[in-house]
Amino acid sequence: MRKGCVALVGAGPGDPELLTLKALRLIKEAEVVVFDRLVSQEILDMIPPGTTRIYAGKQLANHHLAQDEINELLVNLGKSGRRVVRLKGGDPFVFGRGSEEAEVLAKEGIAFEVVPGISSASGCATYAGIPLTHRGLSQGVRLLPGHFREGKTLDYDWSKLADPECTLVIYMGLTNLPQIADELMAAGLPSDMPAAAVENGSTPRQRRVLGTIGSLPRLAVEHQLKAPTLIIIGKVVSLAETLDWFSCLVEDAAPAAEASA
Amino acid sequence: MRKGCVALVGAGPGDPELLTLKALRLIKEAEVVVFDRLVSQEILDMIPPGTTRIYAGKQLANHHLAQDEINELLVNLGKSGRRVVRLKGGDPFVFGRGSEEAEVLAKEGIAFEVVPGISSASGCATYAGIPLTHRGLSQGVRLLPGHFREGKTLDYDWSKLADPECTLVIYMGLTNLPQIADELMAAGLPSDMPAAAVENGSTPRQRRVLGTIGSLPRLAVEHQLKAPTLIIIGKVVSLAETLDWFSCLVEDAAPAAEASA
Repeated sequence: MRKGCVALVGAGPGDPELLTLKALRLIKEAEVVVFDRLVSQEILDMIPPGTTRIYAGKQLANHHLAQDEINELLVNLGKSGRRVVRLKGGDPFVFGRGSEEAEVLAKEGIAFEVVPGISSASGCATYAGIPLTHRGLSQGVRLLPGHFREGKTLDYDWSKLADPECTLVIYMGLTNLPQIADELMAAGLPSDMPAAAVENGSTPRQRRVLGTIGSLPRLAVEHQLKAPTLIIIGKVVSLAETLDWFSCLVEDAAPAAEASA
Repeated sequence: MRKGCVALVGAGPGDPELLTLKALRLIKEAEVVVFDRLVSQEILDMIPPGTTRIYAGKQLANHHLAQDEINELLVNLGKSGRRVVRLKGGDPFVFGRGSEEAEVLAKEGIAFEVVPGISSASGCATYAGIPLTHRGLSQGVRLLPGHFREGKTLDYDWSKLADPECTLVIYMGLTNLPQIADELMAAGLPSDMPAAAVENGSTPRQRRVLGTIGSLPRLAVEHQLKAPTLIIIGKVVSLAETLDWFSCLVEDAAPAAEASA
């Protein structure tokens, strides 16, 4: 890693073994690591003892200001000539705001690189036994945020999203799940379309709740799901029982905390 | 890794450093590795010398039969009680047919696990300097195949895909690119919508061609792009010059093979 370079690095969805070899190398080479709230403790434990750590976690309420501060911090660290890793949960270029940070660095003439991470969509779905695509069940996958900044109303063209041939993966969608389900059903998605919620995906604390788009909002409340929770809607969710490899593995060690409708 | 377990492992888009720690561990523990055509030589070099390697590459023409043979092979290897890694390019659960293999293993009662890999979408876009989402430019991302099996016509509801607020990422779309571009423009996507083609993404042989949805089919022919090439359509492609960190890195070592419209 070069001096004065800022690496925007994806840490993946939670399982520390889902870190890439490149991410681990850069973490070991860095002089400073700036990390997010969603980066797991096991991954933070991989940072060498002598490395400076800066916590840049942000809360939903003061999201906007904090991002400006993070940008400024990264620019200043880059200008100081240090080797900097900016460690983010999931993938920096998928709802990670990594590209906003990269844009600021580019404008300031600071060298940067970007290391993709296993996205929450891919990691949580896989550990929940749900393929994002499957022959005969899904022609593709659509990732979308279920929450807009500053409480802005979700103003999707729901008719474009209500496609029974496409898997929907919704980030940060727990709070708005009742609205999302209603809008999709109003736009033509059948109420018995399989749907799942995956809380703390890919970690030993993972819980998955299986239901339908009609029942999932109620089930999410009953099981008191909390963020981070990923919502998956589509026929591929019907494979979740058959392909449930991770609960099986966890059950070998400890009782699983799974709920199913 | 347990005896008689088959791990379906994503090898990522090409850069061997994008392998996950878990993938590398399983490769080292395996007794047999069954690998795809798209797994790079650098990754195959990580397989220990004593491990049995089986090539399961498949051509487009005899896709169907070969998949049945691969399924049977994995079942037989699992039943033999060996530790098996099935190594696939990209992510097994994103157009990887990993879920079909998992389904067969589940039905035969063979233990399996699935290790997500960096998807081609994420890896190729990131190394091409293109974020899949970006505030103000994209509300989400849609991944879809640009080629159906057995030469079946692409029968998408193009009006659902022609969404200027959503990034489109098209796998295996090079051959059908003229049709895809025409259909999307007929469905309302403006002809000057930025679009990119990324050949051999994330490898030193990466080439990216930047244009618009109107010009990309012509540019792809002019630059004689070949598979594997990923197509990205959406406003986020307009950031590709600013965020081009990878060509810069490659240029440090050797002249870049880049073409831009």
